[in-house]
Amino acid sequence: MELVVLKFGGTSVANIPQIKKIALKVKKEVSLGNKVIAIVSAMSGVTNDLIELVKNTSEIPSYSEYDVVLSSGEQVTSALLAVALEDLGIKARSWLGWQVPIITDRTYGKAVIEEIKTEKINKSLKKNDVAIVSGFQGVSKENRITTLGRGGSDTSAVAMAASFSADRCDIYTDVDGVYTTDPRIVKSAKKLDVITYEEMLELASQGAKVLQTRSVALAMKYGVNLRVLSSFEDTPGTCIIREDQNMEKSEISGIAHSLNEAKITLSGVSDQPGQAAKIFGALAKYSINVDMIVQSSSINQEATDITFTIPETDLALAEKTIKQLKKKIGFKKFLTNTNVVKISVVGNAMKSQSGIANTMFETLAKNQINIHVISTSEIKISVLIDSDYNELAIRALHSAFGLDARLM
Amino acid sequence: MELVVLKFGGTSVANIPQIKKIALKVKKEVSLGNKVIAIVSAMSGVTNDLIELVKNTSEIPSYSEYDVVLSSGEQVTSALLAVALEDLGIKARSWLGWQVPIITDRTYGKAVIEEIKTEKINKSLKKNDVAIVSGFQGVSKENRITTLGRGGSDTSAVAMAASFSADRCDIYTDVDGVYTTDPRIVKSAKKLDVITYEEMLELASQGAKVLQTRSVALAMKYGVNLRVLSSFEDTPGTCIIREDQNMEKSEISGIAHSLNEAKITLSGVSDQPGQAAKIFGALAKYSINVDMIVQSSSINQEATDITFTIPETDLALAEKTIKQLKKKIGFKKFLTNTNVVKISVVGNAMKSQSGIANTMFETLAKNQINIHVISTSEIKISVLIDSDYNELAIRALHSAFGLDARLM
Repeated sequence: MELVVLKFGGTSVANIPQIKKIALKVKKEVSLGNKVIAIVSAMSGVTNDLIELVKNTSEIPSYSEYDVVLSSGEQVTSALLAVALEDLGIKARSWLGWQVPIITDRTYGKAVIEEIKTEKINKSLKKNDVAIVSGFQGVSKENRITTLGRGGSDTSAVAMAASFSADRCDIYTDVDGVYTTDPRIVKSAKKLDVITYEEMLELASQGAKVLQTRSVALAMKYGVNLRVLSSFEDTPGTCIIREDQNMEKSEISGIAHSLNEAKITLSGVSDQPGQAAKIFGALAKYSINVDMIVQSSSINQEATDITFTIPETDLALAEKTIKQLKKKIGFKKFLTNTNVVKISVVGNAMKSQSGIANTMFETLAKNQINIHVISTSEIKISVLIDSDYNELAIRALHSAFGLDARLM
Repeated sequence: MELVVLKFGGTSVANIPQIKKIALKVKKEVSLGNKVIAIVSAMSGVTNDLIELVKNTSEIPSYSEYDVVLSSGEQVTSALLAVALEDLGIKARSWLGWQVPIITDRTYGKAVIEEIKTEKINKSLKKNDVAIVSGFQGVSKENRITTLGRGGSDTSAVAMAASFSADRCDIYTDVDGVYTTDPRIVKSAKKLDVITYEEMLELASQGAKVLQTRSVALAMKYGVNLRVLSSFEDTPGTCIIREDQNMEKSEISGIAHSLNEAKITLSGVSDQPGQAAKIFGALAKYSINVDMIVQSSSINQEATDITFTIPETDLALAEKTIKQLKKKIGFKKFLTNTNVVKISVVGNAMKSQSGIANTMFETLAKNQINIHVISTSEIKISVLIDSDYNELAIRALHSAFGLDARLM
């Protein structure tokens, strides 16, 4: 007997027939003698409709109310799945974030899970009831509803799996696993049977939309046995494993891209200590994630240029924040560019093999693609390029790193 | 400074422009120096959509999950109204049933309020924050969401007004008050400036759709200062008052009708003590409200006929319940008729004046309308007739009792 956490995304619970199908998947686990915690997203489209409602009411809504509206989507699906299971003769009940409870901090709109109380659901699992938990939501210590930010249901699932020491955590989604790159761009992209947490983390944060970054980081931290698989097809999916379990020796596991990028350049920043802290401290206060950072050395040693990237969706807020600091920082120009894409080559093998950066830069140069910014980590190299070259760059790199599937 | 409870029904919060309009009404009360508790329904149509979702998932859903789905409608509007108020510079926050908390029993789907805790909202009111409470919902002692049954938001509003000793409770709806009868049927129907609790109670339970019965009963019990008025027009509405405050001396306050009626006849019931208790006890167990009851005396003293009415929506459940008891009760035939309407003449004056029943029966006879069942209370007479005669009966009675407004 195993304890399994199954997470179903928006497309997996898109409508009633789909919810009934999911119920059959849960039933199958139950009939194998497993105890099941299911995490559900909102029906696809619902969250966007709810956001629209709030935005039409006020341009600057308070996030605590925003969360009350948004959390209703997962509330509905969790109850509907419980009803569908009962209809199949499986005992089940819905658990909202505040009922579990899943306790978070007070960062409404993108809250962080602090603690999950296990007593109540454990009691329910002992009676062999399936626990269906609304993903994406929690409750603050003030007893108000919080949400975990876009894609937060993956995080809910992994956090539940960690807290309940689940034997595995299956993320059901609309793709059948993790690929070497976006199969819509590169037809010959290969599905990976296994990938390490670290690689998945880089792929996720670099824009492979399969799993949310936070959920992978959490899974790595707590050693959650994670698997990505399709709700629609009966294929084995991709297992996310520890590095020492990885028997595959491919140099590079995948190529990711992210179009949600905005490049900001502050030119003529007076060159004195503490400037970066002022800029990035202010952005952090608004929870704006700064990604690539480049500071060009200045010739006259008096002024410098600072270039960095942020999510395009945060650009308006970032611009406002920084312009308020203009006097304090003392820069000349504020330049932005949103016609950019970040392309990342990710692979554990990078640690042990040299020449990967070189292959990457040569491949791009051969295709006349100019690089704006470069950043690296232990297992990835990212470049920021004009978004016009997105597909060309991905195809060329996928081929250059020998990732194309062999044609039979 | 007064404490006022304002309740806004589904049509009053039907869309974002409407919610913004409502926010202005709340703002007006705040600018008068009043403390405000606002109760909101779901956006009109939403509750029906949610019911549809549940019914498409299972024909016999568990009511505890049904309530989780349904309560999301009021959850969304309460937060949206809070956002709209903040947009106007008015401090406000949403309160879900479990956050107040509004504690109910465990009759999911039609729960009864047991207690409302006032501490938290009182604290919030002290800071002059507007409290926006999701109507129609509460929480059971098991910490699960309950709903109060259709139209339950009126009950939420009155219960809140009673618990917080509000100075008044204004029910904003899509009509501008209580009329002598349905103005869509009788063009000359008059709006009443005042009506007593008892009369309103009979009108409400007899099918005047302005206010839910339970809410009126509750208002009477706790002496809540109730008023019905339009969200769309700026008219004074109808005040619901104690009998001793009623200065109007009209004989009859109104004529109500209800089409949601099913007549059940059990014929050949063996005539022995305890039969009625068996039948109505079984129906009560499923919370089916039995209304008019007639037991015909039998000639041979061995068998009798029992006729009664129930809400048409409960007919399938009632049929199943009674047929299971066939052996225990020993009846011959189970007959039903749903093509019936209940017409009621309501008025406090009935207590002191005779001849009202006579006028009613004569008027119906003059129009060749056959009466199936008669029932009476201190301040009303109801008859069950074929639904074909609904409008004819209402018009004739409205005129016979001198309720037609004078044409200027």
